[in-house]
Amino acid sequence: MTDLRYFNRLGPVKLGDIARFVGGELSKPDKAEILIQDIAPIEEAGEGDITVLSDRRYLKLLDHNAASAVITSQALSGFLPEDRPLVYCDQPRLAFAKLGHLFYNDPVAEHPGIDPSARIAPDAVIGTGSQIEPGAVIGAGARIGAGCQIGANAVIGNAVVMGNGCRVGATASISHALIGDRVEIGCGARIGGPGFGFEPDGQKLVRMLQIGRVIIEDDVDIGANTAIDRGATGDTVIGAGSKLDNLVQIGHNVRIGKSCILCGQVGIAGSTTLGDGVIMGGASAVADHLTIGSGVRIAAKAGVMRDLEPGAVVSGVPAIPIQDWYRQTAGLIRMFSRRAKKSEEA
Amino acid sequence: MTDLRYFNRLGPVKLGDIARFVGGELSKPDKAEILIQDIAPIEEAGEGDITVLSDRRYLKLLDHNAASAVITSQALSGFLPEDRPLVYCDQPRLAFAKLGHLFYNDPVAEHPGIDPSARIAPDAVIGTGSQIEPGAVIGAGARIGAGCQIGANAVIGNAVVMGNGCRVGATASISHALIGDRVEIGCGARIGGPGFGFEPDGQKLVRMLQIGRVIIEDDVDIGANTAIDRGATGDTVIGAGSKLDNLVQIGHNVRIGKSCILCGQVGIAGSTTLGDGVIMGGASAVADHLTIGSGVRIAAKAGVMRDLEPGAVVSGVPAIPIQDWYRQTAGLIRMFSRRAKKSEEA
Amino acid sequence: MTDLRYFNRLGPVKLGDIARFVGGELSKPDKAEILIQDIAPIEEAGEGDITVLSDRRYLKLLDHNAASAVITSQALSGFLPEDRPLVYCDQPRLAFAKLGHLFYNDPVAEHPGIDPSARIAPDAVIGTGSQIEPGAVIGAGARIGAGCQIGANAVIGNAVVMGNGCRVGATASISHALIGDRVEIGCGARIGGPGFGFEPDGQKLVRMLQIGRVIIEDDVDIGANTAIDRGATGDTVIGAGSKLDNLVQIGHNVRIGKSCILCGQVGIAGSTTLGDGVIMGGASAVADHLTIGSGVRIAAKAGVMRDLEPGAVVSGVPAIPIQDWYRQTAGLIRMFSRRAKKSEEA
Repeated sequence: MTDLRYFNRLGPVKLGDIARFVGGELSKPDKAEILIQDIAPIEEAGEGDITVLSDRRYLKLLDHNAASAVITSQALSGFLPEDRPLVYCDQPRLAFAKLGHLFYNDPVAEHPGIDPSARIAPDAVIGTGSQIEPGAVIGAGARIGAGCQIGANAVIGNAVVMGNGCRVGATASISHALIGDRVEIGCGARIGGPGFGFEPDGQKLVRMLQIGRVIIEDDVDIGANTAIDRGATGDTVIGAGSKLDNLVQIGHNVRIGKSCILCGQVGIAGSTTLGDGVIMGGASAVADHLTIGSGVRIAAKAGVMRDLEPGAVVSGVPAIPIQDWYRQTAGLIRMFSRRAKKSEEA
Repeated sequence: MTDLRYFNRLGPVKLGDIARFVGGELSKPDKAEILIQDIAPIEEAGEGDITVLSDRRYLKLLDHNAASAVITSQALSGFLPEDRPLVYCDQPRLAFAKLGHLFYNDPVAEHPGIDPSARIAPDAVIGTGSQIEPGAVIGAGARIGAGCQIGANAVIGNAVVMGNGCRVGATASISHALIGDRVEIGCGARIGGPGFGFEPDGQKLVRMLQIGRVIIEDDVDIGANTAIDRGATGDTVIGAGSKLDNLVQIGHNVRIGKSCILCGQVGIAGSTTLGDGVIMGGASAVADHLTIGSGVRIAAKAGVMRDLEPGAVVSGVPAIPIQDWYRQTAGLIRMFSRRAKKSEEA
Repeated sequence: MTDLRYFNRLGPVKLGDIARFVGGELSKPDKAEILIQDIAPIEEAGEGDITVLSDRRYLKLLDHNAASAVITSQALSGFLPEDRPLVYCDQPRLAFAKLGHLFYNDPVAEHPGIDPSARIAPDAVIGTGSQIEPGAVIGAGARIGAGCQIGANAVIGNAVVMGNGCRVGATASISHALIGDRVEIGCGARIGGPGFGFEPDGQKLVRMLQIGRVIIEDDVDIGANTAIDRGATGDTVIGAGSKLDNLVQIGHNVRIGKSCILCGQVGIAGSTTLGDGVIMGGASAVADHLTIGSGVRIAAKAGVMRDLEPGAVVSGVPAIPIQDWYRQTAGLIRMFSRRAKKSEEA
């Protein structure tokens, strides 16, 4: 099903090599030589494909496909037909995610070199093997690491420092920023703009000084058209391995911990701190100057207006513990819905 | 009132020709030769203008203007002064919308040709009469149809296929996409980025493979800075004639039906399906993996967390039938508002 | 702490000159010759720095720092150690905001001139001292004032008129617009796109004519990736001194008064009017065709669905007076939360 105009498929790969790559175990060691052509989700997999079964609910889908092998857990294997070659893994979905990178290379800097239409400041430094696409602009004193890809018409500001293996999408812009290794920045993302703080002077508004930076640690992903403001003084920080989806707004001096997940259209107001492993659902938001503990989970559309202890799970505006929110929303439906009223009267 | 630096006004047009163009009927056939210079909304129309009356509420505005003709329905015509020439139409607002395109051409590819500063891959194909503006980048193997306009500094990725009569705004970027005819893509829109899906590997997050595409059918409009992710496997689809406003977020593998209207800042999470003719108000959202029936209407700011039957009209977070939501919000105001309490006590 | 790769620090400045610049008074006139090297927030200030104390809550922070001088009010000065040189001001925070511009110049058009890779239409006019960065595109008949900075790969459309001292961020795009003096437009902002209005024609949707403009008055700030649509007919107006944060959506024919503050991800639907000094919290929204009085304050995440009188303070969806909203949200927690229930029972 994959459109090979857009992706380079590698392979085929022997089933035994797949098992080794994902750290799994073959149900039938004698099938190690089977050639697997591609990977596919369970609803699409056909002959030559390897697929994944991570939940009993999807068992039925497997009946109707001809996948040549299935990654699954020992616990689920009992439900599977005897004749299907299996690869046992503790975390089948994770194994499948990793396997994607064996079958498809998503190459950073596939065509190294600097396009002649890119405009590179004379004192900028570009690491070996990096690819600078057409129309990209790299400012004075900027340093781009090795094996990076700077997309077409992207703009890297003066003195920005970027590590190795980074990718910057088309027309993204970055300024006042230090960026680690293997960072991916989506198309149209805006890193390093001035924070939003003003002080009234009679009828007028005077902008507070914005002389900080943005620090993006290793392995961070930033989505398309997301905006991250620099610190007023000091830094805005995105911790290692955190993932930000599209159209996210990060205010000045926000500090995000490691391995956080911020879904689309999330907003975090100035000077708020997130611990590690925080998950924020789509279009949720956190007010300014708050402290959100590690492992907190914030439901989609919620609005957090107070500090949250580590591990809290909240929903609603203002956000409250999610169990209370479920009771509240269910209670309100009982109180006010016509259908609920009628069934009570009956 | 129109600033002719920005728009090409055509005309004048004879009233009889206007009636024919919109499929309407003249109240006074002897006025068919009157020359109409321009179109204008009812609050601005003056001599030489044609305007529209689609609702009795706006009758008063007509007293104070000197519009030379009015598009209206037979039903409303009784309220209008005898001497004003009318064009009867079943749908006056629609007639007026169409008429705009007779008085103002919004030309696609007004100045065909490729600007010398555009960077076109050697094997890209550009259809006849297309206009490629300064700094635009068109990747290897891309195919642009006839009569398209690719805005300044826009970036069309490798192997993107685009039909005829499309327009891409300045600095928009498109990749991994097949695009139909007469599609309009706003400035800064991001089509084809990787979807947002990760699997935890201890403390780290591994991105799921994102090897799908974006399919945009004919006559779709996409607003400024809107982001549409490609499928993980398989496609993200925007159905024919659907209209997306600015700053909308569409997750991977979302499938939107035909003639849907998604207002500004709407968000739709991954793998959700919308039927035809769905209307979503501003900043409303739908969670992932849901099925939203045809003709559903979702109020502004709502958050849909369950499947919806065709024709459902909902509001709130979580979204409930809008009549229930009205009762709930009114009920809460009665219960908790100071003013309401006081008047009850009195 | 400031990273001098990104900012030009001026100074040192004599304390007496600082007092004069902010219109304040020295507590110890004999200290007027002390040299101040930098400004810093109270939690970071060290020797050679001047800082600000605007609230008793921050007094403790002052104990642990070695700031060489403090801007504060007469009222707060009694709490401060005798030996610290003070600058008395009525509005210490405002004085500090102003002082930032004495210590750091944030120069518009630091390197005047037109980069050779910029594409300027032959009949465009560029004022003296303006800086046009690499890859910027300026359309036919556009007029850019004096001392402006047009960022890399930004796109200024045909016949756009811009005053003096403006700054346009990288890859921003502007069309159909008249722009005043000292306007700052963030990276990736989209000014002048077509409004979002359609009329159904059977199954199809016909776009209403969009032949208006955007008017941006003096001293307006517009954030990164914010979108402002032009009027359908007539104008969309952003009043003098108003400040819009990132990812804000402004519909066609919206009229915003003077000195308004719109935080990140705010949305305002078509034809709504805001008075002067309106403050909208993050991710709040106003529906279409409403009138919002001067001085209204709308809480973060609120959704306004009715006209609001001047000075109203609202929250919630639908937005209600904020005192009622506090009572409602607290009341619901009492009614439905497990912890609240338990403590009542106890």
